[in-house]
Amino acid sequence: DPKLKIFALNSNQPLAEKIAEAVGVKLGKTSVDRFSDGEIRINIEESIRGDQVYIIQSTSAPVNDNLMELLIMIDALRRASAKTINVVIPYYGYARQDRKARSREPITAKLVANMLETAGATRVLALDLHAAQIQGFFDIPLDHLMGAPLLADYFLTHHLDENAVVVSPDHGGVTRARKLAELLKVPIAIIDKRRPRANVAEVMNIIGDVKGKRAIMIDDMIDTAGTITLGAQALMDAGATEVYASCTHPVLSGPAIERIEKSPIKKLIVTDSIALPAEKQIEKIVQVSVGQLMGQAIKFIHENKPVSPLFKNRFH
Amino acid sequence: DPKLKIFALNSNQPLAEKIAEAVGVKLGKTSVDRFSDGEIRINIEESIRGDQVYIIQSTSAPVNDNLMELLIMIDALRRASAKTINVVIPYYGYARQDRKARSREPITAKLVANMLETAGATRVLALDLHAAQIQGFFDIPLDHLMGAPLLADYFLTHHLDENAVVVSPDHGGVTRARKLAELLKVPIAIIDKRRPRANVAEVMNIIGDVKGKRAIMIDDMIDTAGTITLGAQALMDAGATEVYASCTHPVLSGPAIERIEKSPIKKLIVTDSIALPAEKQIEKIVQVSVGQLMGQAIKFIHENKPVSPLFKNRFH
Ligand SMILES: Nc1ncnc2c1ncn2[C@@H]1O[C@H](COP(=O)(O)O)[C@@H](O)[C@H]1O
Ligand SMILES: Nc1ncnc2c1ncn2[C@@H]1O[C@H](COP(=O)(O)O)[C@@H](O)[C@H]1O
Repeated sequence: DPKLKIFALNSNQPLAEKIAEAVGVKLGKTSVDRFSDGEIRINIEESIRGDQVYIIQSTSAPVNDNLMELLIMIDALRRASAKTINVVIPYYGYARQDRKARSREPITAKLVANMLETAGATRVLALDLHAAQIQGFFDIPLDHLMGAPLLADYFLTHHLDENAVVVSPDHGGVTRARKLAELLKVPIAIIDKRRPRANVAEVMNIIGDVKGKRAIMIDDMIDTAGTITLGAQALMDAGATEVYASCTHPVLSGPAIERIEKSPIKKLIVTDSIALPAEKQIEKIVQVSVGQLMGQAIKFIHENKPVSPLFKNRFH
Repeated sequence: DPKLKIFALNSNQPLAEKIAEAVGVKLGKTSVDRFSDGEIRINIEESIRGDQVYIIQSTSAPVNDNLMELLIMIDALRRASAKTINVVIPYYGYARQDRKARSREPITAKLVANMLETAGATRVLALDLHAAQIQGFFDIPLDHLMGAPLLADYFLTHHLDENAVVVSPDHGGVTRARKLAELLKVPIAIIDKRRPRANVAEVMNIIGDVKGKRAIMIDDMIDTAGTITLGAQALMDAGATEVYASCTHPVLSGPAIERIEKSPIKKLIVTDSIALPAEKQIEKIVQVSVGQLMGQAIKFIHENKPVSPLFKNRFH
């Protein structure tokens, strides 16, 4: 029987530890560091010949370094005769560059998929891809996990009362918000951003009833936190009593932390798909782990069992 | 007739300007910068439909960022219907990872070649690849230029007397040193590094006559400058009157600048295949440009003329 081995690269060691624990194996021995000139040096310190290997790596910032670590690791494993090379990508970077929105734009999310396959990946395990269509960028099997049931679990035991409402920060996120609302058994509302004329500030209209209610916003990722914090203010202005926010991927770049601190958001619930450096671990932010979920998924894949029963409630 | 267009990315703008000038065209309009989270954003600001496009990019440090810029640019050009996509790589990063020297090592130089082809490159123009075998990593046409004739030109007008000797810093570089010696019409010597027993310091033996002579060392790249500065000291100890050094690719990472400053090397002659930041532009270092050479090569390729007559004296 081929052995199951899990290797962690540098983007998210704490999550990798949790995944390995959930699977019930130790992380494989490897060192991934730099030569003097910054080129990546990878040393796999145990034989993996004939094994089924899982690599845990989020392509979060520094995205190019983390992506190259992953590609070089896949190359090394392939040349070392791994039986299968399964890449576990909790956060898939470059996912927003998934179409030509303007002339002569790259489609970097597809380029990344091609690179992973060319390097030698034989399967992908992903979590809340920014667009579900990215599944189709791959010609190898891909399993797509959902973070929202975990976020729902959190709210079911915290901050929830009969007076809550789930809010989508834009029209693109309504499906996700509706599913969370179903799990929480509360109604939904939608923030409708519109620019009345060119060069005039956006107006935030709220569709649905939030007055006197506790609002729970949900998105797939929060990057600079502009949308979510402006939305939170609009909800307070419309008479919400409190605003909570949640997302799967805490990108949190640039002014994000400052904006969240200053905003009326009481708590922001995120997953650990992206590791948060110390300066981003502020009191308002709560991280729930996807380690158990991803570990279970790896076990199911290894045993050739369907992965979907892991989340009875599908999102997207 | 398809138009010739040249685009520069961020690794080496000064060289790109020189190449464009030598070709007699203006650099194409493009902006290559970052989104807030560090992901690369590329904007090609003119139509390139049906054109023959040349991209100038060295994959020097930060190597992963520079490589991803190149790959994403290729992707954007391909989707924008460029007729040909010619990648001009004055310095090819990851070239030293060109074979499995130990078990389970990646062959990153081949991975990079595969990535470039998968992204859509149709031709490569390279300069002094660390190993000529890297040509075989590509299935698309590759032209390989040599920097040594330019370095020879420099020495023919500077620091040369009838009493000079060209020195190879190790056995691997003897062919390169012999060719430079031929061009300069002087003899050669070789530094023979040997470790008498394990855990004992290396001994530097000099094969050939350097006593009372001006020594000119040559290598393809200088990275941390350990080899070249120890070699220079060994040459002085053996009675050389002065030591000059030269290489095509000034990687100059880590302690390199400090070592060169402290060493007996009088001048280090390098090319501009890698742009030197201000702190590395010390008095001892002289940069000669490969802009004219690469510009001529691009013109020849565009006109379907053979590139090799550009350097009558071939190296490697
Ligand atoms: N890393 C990024 N940060 C911000 N915007 C991005 C990023 N990558 C791509 N985009 C832009 O985001 C848009 C797609 O976002 P969305 O509509 O949310 O799918 C496209 O117009 C992209 O140009
Ligand atoms: N960026 C780098 N810096 C230093 N050594 C490297 C680098 N990349 C690869 N190597 C090592 O250099 C050796 C090959 O160098 P060479 O013998 O000069 O071709 C291999 O053993 C590699 O592991």
